Amino acid sequence: MIYADNAATTKMSKTAIAAMLPYLDEIYGNPSSLYLAGQKAKEALEAARQTVARCIGAEPREILFTSGGSEADNQAIRSAAQFGAAKGKRHIISDTIEHHAVLHTLKKLEGEGFEVTYLPVHENGIVRPQELEAALRDDTCLVTVMTANNEIGTIQPIRELGALCRARGVPFHTDAVQAVGHIPVHVKDDNIDLLSAAAHKFHGPKGVGFLYAKRGVRLQSLIEGGAQERGLRAGTENVGGIVAMAAALEEAVGTMEENAKKLAALRDRLIAGISEIPHSALNGDAAKRLPGNVSFCFEGIEGESLLLLLDDKGICASSGSACTSGSLDPSHVLLAIGRVHDVAHGSLRLTLGEDATEAQTDEIIAAVKDVVAHLRSFSPVWRDLCAGKGKFIL
Amino acid sequence: MIYADNAATTKMSKTAIAAMLPYLDEIYGNPSSLYLAGQKAKEALEAARQTVARCIGAEPREILFTSGGSEADNQAIRSAAQFGAAKGKRHIISDTIEHHAVLHTLKKLEGEGFEVTYLPVHENGIVRPQELEAALRDDTCLVTVMTANNEIGTIQPIRELGALCRARGVPFHTDAVQAVGHIPVHVKDDNIDLLSAAAHKFHGPKGVGFLYAKRGVRLQSLIEGGAQERGLRAGTENVGGIVAMAAALEEAVGTMEENAKKLAALRDRLIAGISEIPHSALNGDAAKRLPGNVSFCFEGIEGESLLLLLDDKGICASSGSACTSGSLDPSHVLLAIGRVHDVAHGSLRLTLGEDATEAQTDEIIAAVKDVVAHLRSFSPVWRDLCAGKGKFIL
Repeated sequence: MIYADNAATTKMSKTAIAAMLPYLDEIYGNPSSLYLAGQKAKEALEAARQTVARCIGAEPREILFTSGGSEADNQAIRSAAQFGAAKGKRHIISDTIEHHAVLHTLKKLEGEGFEVTYLPVHENGIVRPQELEAALRDDTCLVTVMTANNEIGTIQPIRELGALCRARGVPFHTDAVQAVGHIPVHVKDDNIDLLSAAAHKFHGPKGVGFLYAKRGVRLQSLIEGGAQERGLRAGTENVGGIVAMAAALEEAVGTMEENAKKLAALRDRLIAGISEIPHSALNGDAAKRLPGNVSFCFEGIEGESLLLLLDDKGICASSGSACTSGSLDPSHVLLAIGRVHDVAHGSLRLTLGEDATEAQTDEIIAAVKDVVAHLRSFSPVWRDLCAGKGKFIL
Repeated sequence: MIYADNAATTKMSKTAIAAMLPYLDEIYGNPSSLYLAGQKAKEALEAARQTVARCIGAEPREILFTSGGSEADNQAIRSAAQFGAAKGKRHIISDTIEHHAVLHTLKKLEGEGFEVTYLPVHENGIVRPQELEAALRDDTCLVTVMTANNEIGTIQPIRELGALCRARGVPFHTDAVQAVGHIPVHVKDDNIDLLSAAAHKFHGPKGVGFLYAKRGVRLQSLIEGGAQERGLRAGTENVGGIVAMAAALEEAVGTMEENAKKLAALRDRLIAGISEIPHSALNGDAAKRLPGNVSFCFEGIEGESLLLLLDDKGICASSGSACTSGSLDPSHVLLAIGRVHDVAHGSLRLTLGEDATEAQTDEIIAAVKDVVAHLRSFSPVWRDLCAGKGKFIL
């Protein structure tokens, strides 16, 4: 099996598993308990907080552990909205290619009387700072722009966007779920006030993530109850998961430079190979993209069939976001970068893991060429296009 | 070490750990992914849902996986409140000894215009059905009463309370975090509409729980985003944690009868032994209590010192809820059953695990007698009481 869907989720690293195990049945105390067995768990929790903080240039007290990236996104956005509304500020700026954890939260807020400006991302999938600058208003209470896109891998100019927000005193949140552990993220240098991340995207466990909130940026709790996480996130802490997340992140950050270099080379090899397929197009920016991300649209192809045939060849790939794979609607991200409805349906996302090889890359290229040709061979749409009925778009 | 704080958290069982491991680095696909590796994870998730459902007499589609008991409590209560308000019903009934995940959510709702009636629990810590009946109103949109209390272990007459709610068409929620896996819980027989549980209380992992919602009882999501859990709980599912929770619950339910019998005998042995200490009193009902729960108040004692000295003797115990151990306020539960402020401060909770032995029980009794005598020996309050200045309360 070639697993080329690391944007959907990753395999836990040996380091992360080894870090987790002792906290399941040896040091299993409740971190809120006074006795030694509880305090050992508490110490592990705080050590993990330090590690996570160090990996993104934050201070430990700025890290809040959550059950994942979606919860972190929800809490960050809801908090900024609530504290904004308390000051009469009900305008939020985001963009058209955010993850649904952001977009659906914003949609709810629109129903509650907030106004949201969605910045366009243009054909390369990138927000333009001057357009953010123009959109900022006196009543803007939040700007939320993801660090890197989960479907097309484009990396946003976070530092510039953050600087514009800071100059106007507007809190800046970034969904960095796809970025943390993969590309350098430094909350201080990048002018970030709120940041969401999920462990399972960087070889940590599923069901755990974190929210960074710059000191002085207020949060409200999404889950009420006990006084855990300074009263901002109730519920007994997932000690094993949190410790494993910290170990995974430390490992990912420590090997990031070499991995990114290697992955970018494999990515470009994949892109070059797949680009040989006629009437195909790379989605997103060729340069400003995650090291492991490859995203294509193919004319005359139905994405789901493509995935199933690749699966038959032992290749795990995606059409876009795993979170929406049950949906028949084309990706909002691909529509946002200007792909028309039919073309957006013929999409393929390949996201390489750190253990990917050149040989695997070549196997993927051959398989994709093979499957695309096969599917086109009995596609009526493709036959019509080849017969001059209708125009090729790509 | 004698771990006598199983109400705070439990050690993961070997069965649960073994069930979890393959889902960390073998079957690690995202359950939302179309390919086989994703579908295998999806199958495991649905098998876990069937197991959990079977263990509480529910149907699989009535089980929603969450990050724990607090999240489940929040979602259940918020949902009932929102759908109630939409029909103009803004009255909620609960009681005075609920967990903070319930009480703090209710407090927030009070701030949002809801009215909450808190039923008394009397000196034995048990809600009286006739008092619920009298409190039910036409605008009551929710009744929430826990199945068993986390501090004093009292078991509520859930079936009768549920029947009263059902007769009036009012949704009935129960925080069963302390009950599930320990005493029989059957949502259909017990007339329960909404039920919260947490895996780490029955030898499953921390960071995972579930919410049962009877078919037809509507929920709203607390975390917006992807379409996971039928759109009611966004975020990549914690597959390993969920599978482990199901395995732990199945094991707990399968061994419940014999364990409960054994634990009740050890509990009563502990209660008899500790009762020999003068001016002590059992908290909660002697009969209607969780098999492993022992809770005492001692006159002239400061609870925290008691715990620290027991810890020195290798005994892990609690004064009450682990979730509030950082707080200096006396337990709201002990105050609710009529303990005065000073006496409530001198509390001790011992919650036995399934591997507890008679020898350990006797060791605990000896240690508690020893430590109480020691602390009283230099307590000015105790000295005054013994000298006839002031009156013994217990």
